[in-house]
Amino acid sequence: MLGSGNRVCSTSCSSPVFVIILDLLPAKNGEEATIQFLLELVDILTNYIRKTFDRSTKVLDFHHPHQLLEGMEGFNLELSDQPESLEQILVDCRDTLKYGVRTGHPRFFNQLSTGLDIIGLAGEWLTSTANTNMFTYEIAPVFVLMEQLTLKKMREMIGWPSGEGDGIFSPGGAISNMYSVMIARYKYFPDVKTKGMSAAPRLVLFTSEHSHYSIKKAGAALGFGSENVVLLSTDERGRVIPSDLEAKILDVKQKGYHPLFVNATAGSTVYGAFDPINEIADICEKYNMWLHVDGAWGGGLLMSRKHRHKFSGVERANSVTWNPHKMMGVPLQCSAILVREKGILSGCNSMCAGYLFQPDKQYDVSFDTGDKAIQCGRHVDIFKFWLMWKAKGTIGFEQHIDRCLDLSQYLYEKIRNREGYEMVFQGVPQHTNVCFWYIPPSLRGMDPNSQEYREKLHKVAPKIKALMMESGTTMVGYQPQGQKVNFFRMVISNPAALQSDIDFLIDEIERLGHGL
Amino acid sequence: MLGSGNRVCSTSCSSPVFVIILDLLPAKNGEEATIQFLLELVDILTNYIRKTFDRSTKVLDFHHPHQLLEGMEGFNLELSDQPESLEQILVDCRDTLKYGVRTGHPRFFNQLSTGLDIIGLAGEWLTSTANTNMFTYEIAPVFVLMEQLTLKKMREMIGWPSGEGDGIFSPGGAISNMYSVMIARYKYFPDVKTKGMSAAPRLVLFTSEHSHYSIKKAGAALGFGSENVVLLSTDERGRVIPSDLEAKILDVKQKGYHPLFVNATAGSTVYGAFDPINEIADICEKYNMWLHVDGAWGGGLLMSRKHRHKFSGVERANSVTWNPHKMMGVPLQCSAILVREKGILSGCNSMCAGYLFQPDKQYDVSFDTGDKAIQCGRHVDIFKFWLMWKAKGTIGFEQHIDRCLDLSQYLYEKIRNREGYEMVFQGVPQHTNVCFWYIPPSLRGMDPNSQEYREKLHKVAPKIKALMMESGTTMVGYQPQGQKVNFFRMVISNPAALQSDIDFLIDEIERLGHGL
Repeated sequence: MLGSGNRVCSTSCSSPVFVIILDLLPAKNGEEATIQFLLELVDILTNYIRKTFDRSTKVLDFHHPHQLLEGMEGFNLELSDQPESLEQILVDCRDTLKYGVRTGHPRFFNQLSTGLDIIGLAGEWLTSTANTNMFTYEIAPVFVLMEQLTLKKMREMIGWPSGEGDGIFSPGGAISNMYSVMIARYKYFPDVKTKGMSAAPRLVLFTSEHSHYSIKKAGAALGFGSENVVLLSTDERGRVIPSDLEAKILDVKQKGYHPLFVNATAGSTVYGAFDPINEIADICEKYNMWLHVDGAWGGGLLMSRKHRHKFSGVERANSVTWNPHKMMGVPLQCSAILVREKGILSGCNSMCAGYLFQPDKQYDVSFDTGDKAIQCGRHVDIFKFWLMWKAKGTIGFEQHIDRCLDLSQYLYEKIRNREGYEMVFQGVPQHTNVCFWYIPPSLRGMDPNSQEYREKLHKVAPKIKALMMESGTTMVGYQPQGQKVNFFRMVISNPAALQSDIDFLIDEIERLGHGL
Repeated sequence: MLGSGNRVCSTSCSSPVFVIILDLLPAKNGEEATIQFLLELVDILTNYIRKTFDRSTKVLDFHHPHQLLEGMEGFNLELSDQPESLEQILVDCRDTLKYGVRTGHPRFFNQLSTGLDIIGLAGEWLTSTANTNMFTYEIAPVFVLMEQLTLKKMREMIGWPSGEGDGIFSPGGAISNMYSVMIARYKYFPDVKTKGMSAAPRLVLFTSEHSHYSIKKAGAALGFGSENVVLLSTDERGRVIPSDLEAKILDVKQKGYHPLFVNATAGSTVYGAFDPINEIADICEKYNMWLHVDGAWGGGLLMSRKHRHKFSGVERANSVTWNPHKMMGVPLQCSAILVREKGILSGCNSMCAGYLFQPDKQYDVSFDTGDKAIQCGRHVDIFKFWLMWKAKGTIGFEQHIDRCLDLSQYLYEKIRNREGYEMVFQGVPQHTNVCFWYIPPSLRGMDPNSQEYREKLHKVAPKIKALMMESGTTMVGYQPQGQKVNFFRMVISNPAALQSDIDFLIDEIERLGHGL
C-alpha cells in the first residue's frame, strides 16, 4: 500500500533509517521501526519543550481560522481515504505544535491552567502507553488504588475525620460540580433517581453571581432549570454576602419551593474570591441544606499552611470540587469531586451493569469503582498527579502555591499605584487573580463616569489582547463583569513564571496600549 | 531539599548522569537534566511496548488489592510530605507498568477497547506535551479545527447531507449518550433548560433491554427517573423488536405520558447486536420522537464498505454516538456525539460565560465551541484520532474493521460445533462479539434444563476467568444476561490479534476449564 517514498530519516543516528507505516508494531519484526519512529517523535517533543521554556520563543504564532483551514505550506488538516507516509506524519506533528499555543511558556498567563510540569508530563506519557480504563480493578489495579489513596489524602486535607468519605476523578470541574448537585438531590430526594423530578418539590440551588457558570449548566442539564439557580450578591471583592443568602432562602421558602443546595466558591474564576464558608455553613445547617465548596481553582491552597485559612470551614462542606490541573500545575485533565458521606456517590449513580461489575470475581469487588461514575469508561487522570505528588511531596506543592501567590502580590504592589492603572477591586488579592484596567494616555483626563469613557475603556483590553496575540509575546485574559467594562484578569499558576515575566507583561501592555 | 543521593543513572550513555528534581525545567540550565529524564522514561516505555507485543510476555501479573496496598518490594503507593528522588520516580514508573494490565497484548480480549496503536500513542504523547484545552480557538487553534473537520467527516459517513450538522468529542460513550437525551429534551421542550422538568409532561425514553446502561444513567441523572426509561424486548439475537417498541409507545401515551426518545443500539455491548434502525426510524417519525443511535461500539463499521449495511437507516437518526476508542483502536478516551441539526447543541447547553467566550475577540468566535459542552475545560481527544486517520487513511480503518470481523467469524466457525461449547445465540455474529458457554466434561451429560446444571454452569466462566488472570496468559470477559447464566463474551478489536491467538484462547479455556 505504501510506496518506497514513505521514509523517515532519523536525525539521531548516522545513517538514515527507512520505515513505512505497515512496518510498525504489531507487524512482525516491527520493533525497530516502532522504536525509531517514537524516538523521532520524542525528538520533536523535547525540542518543543526546550523552546517552550525559552523566553526568546514566542508564546504563539497566531493565524486566523480561515488561514489554517486553507492550509499552511505542507500542513493540510483535511483527512483522506489514503494513508500518509510516516515522514509526513512526523511533519504533521511538528506543524501541529508550531501553530498551537505554548501553554507552558513562562509568559502564558491566559488561563487558570498554565505551565508544563515535566513529571506530570512523564505521567501522561506513561498513562497513554498503559492505555487502560478506570472502571474496574481488573484492568487498572494500580491506578484504581492510586486514586483511592490520593482521594483519601485530599479528604484529610479538607479535614474530614480520618479522611473518610468518598470521591472520584471526573473530566473537569464542571462535571465535578454537576456531581455535587446530583448527590445533594439524591441525599434529600432519593426517589428522583427512579421517578424523576416530579418526585420532589421545586428545588432551588444557590450560588454566587461570581461563581463558575457550571452550576447553572448543571441546573439546566439535571432538570432543575437555570431559573431555579438563584444568584447571590457579593461584596466589592466578589465574596458572597451571607445575609443575602439567608434572605433569598427565606424568599424561596415563602414561595413554597425547596432550598436544596448552596455552592460556596473557593477561588472564583475572575476575582479569585473566597466565599465565607463558615458563615454559609451556619446557614446551610440552619435550613438543612447541602453545602458544596467549588474549590476547582482555589483547591491547591489547601496544601499551603500560609494560605489554607482561606478555606476555613471547608470541613463542614458536604462535597468539594478540587482541580489539581489548575493551581497545582497537573496536566489537563485532573479534577476531583470529594464527598463527606461514604456510599452516597454509589447510591446516587449505580446501575449495576452485569457485564462490567460481576459480583463473582475472584478479588474484592469493592475496588471496582466504575459504577459510582456517570461515565462508563473513564480516562486515567490519577497517575500524573500521583507521580507529581511523589516527586514533589506535599511540601513541593506548598512551595509552588506560596510562590505563585507571592508573585501575584508582586504584581499587585507594582501596579496598584502606577500611572495608567486602576484596580478592579482594592486590597491584596485572595488568590493569584489580579484584576485591573490599563488606561491609555488618551483616556487619562476623561471623566471616568462618562459613557464615552466607559465605551472607550471597554475596547482597550480586547485591542491590547489582539495585538499581544498577533505579536505572540504573551497572553493574558480579559472580560467584563457585571457593570464593569472589559478588564484584564491576570492569574499565575505557571511554575516557570518569574518576577521578570510579570515586568515583561506590564511593559508589553504599555507598549501595545500606549497609543490607543 | 534533595540530597546528593537523588540520582538517575542513564542507561543510554556511557557515563552516568546525575539529576535531581529541582534541576528539571523550569530550573535554569535545566534542559539537559529534563531531556535526560524524559529519555530515561521513554526507555522504560519503549521496553514496555516491545514486551506488550511479545506473546511470551504475560498479559498481567495478578495481585489482590491488599497485596498491592501492603506494598510490593520497592513499590509503595502511599504519598508523603517529602519528595522522592528522580531515581525512585523512574522505578515507580517501571513498577506501575509491571503491576498493571497490558491492554495492548495480542491476547487481551477483555474489553471493547483493546490494542495499542503506535500512531495513536504518538498522538497522545504530543497531546500531553501541548497540554491545552478545547474550549476556545484562542488556546487550541489547531485542535479545534481538527475536531471540526473530523466531525464533518464522521457526519458524512453517517450520511447526513454534505456532512452538515453538529457534534462534539466527549469523555466517553456514556456522556455522549447523555448529550443525546439532553438535546432531545431541548428540541421538544426547550423551556426545561430554564424552568426545569416541571415545564414538560412526564417524558419517557425507550431503549433495548440489551442496550448500554448509560441510557438509564442518563435518565436518572437528567431528572427523568430510571423508571421512565422503558426497556424494549429483543429477539434471540438481542435486536429490538419494532412492534414491541410501538406497543410500548402506545401504552405510555395511553397513560398520558410523553414518549420522547428512542435509543437504537448499533453494536450492543454483550451480543454485538444491531437494532433495525430503519424500522425504528419509521416509528419515531410516526410518533414524532427523537431517534438516537448508540454506535459507541459499532460505529467503526461505518468505515467498512462490507459491514456498513448493518447501520442501514442511520442517516435518519437525529443523533449518533460513535467511540473511535473502541472498534477503531484509538487510545482512550475518544468518543463523539454527532447531531443532525446544527445549532441545537449550543442552544441546549450555552450559558455564555463572559470570561471565556468574549464576543469582542479579533478572530471569528464561532470557532469557540466550548459553550456547546456540558464541560468547561475539555481534554484534547481529537489529535490522536486525526493523526491515526492521516496515517491509515479511511481504507486503513476499513481494513482493520474487516480483519477483526473475519477473525471473529473464524472463532465462531471454530467453536460452533466443537465439543464442549454452546453458542449463546445462533448464526454469524453481527459484530465481533462471540458469546458462548464452555461446558466442562463433568457437566456434559447433565440435563441442561436442570437447576443443578444451571448453577454449576454459572460458576464455570468466573472460575476459568480467575485461573486465567492468575496465570496471566489471556483475558476475556464474561457475564450473565437476563435468564442466561454466566457465559464468555469474546470481542476482537485488537489489531495485534491473529488466528493463532484465537486458537490460544480456546486451548487456554480448555486447559483451565477441563477439570472443573
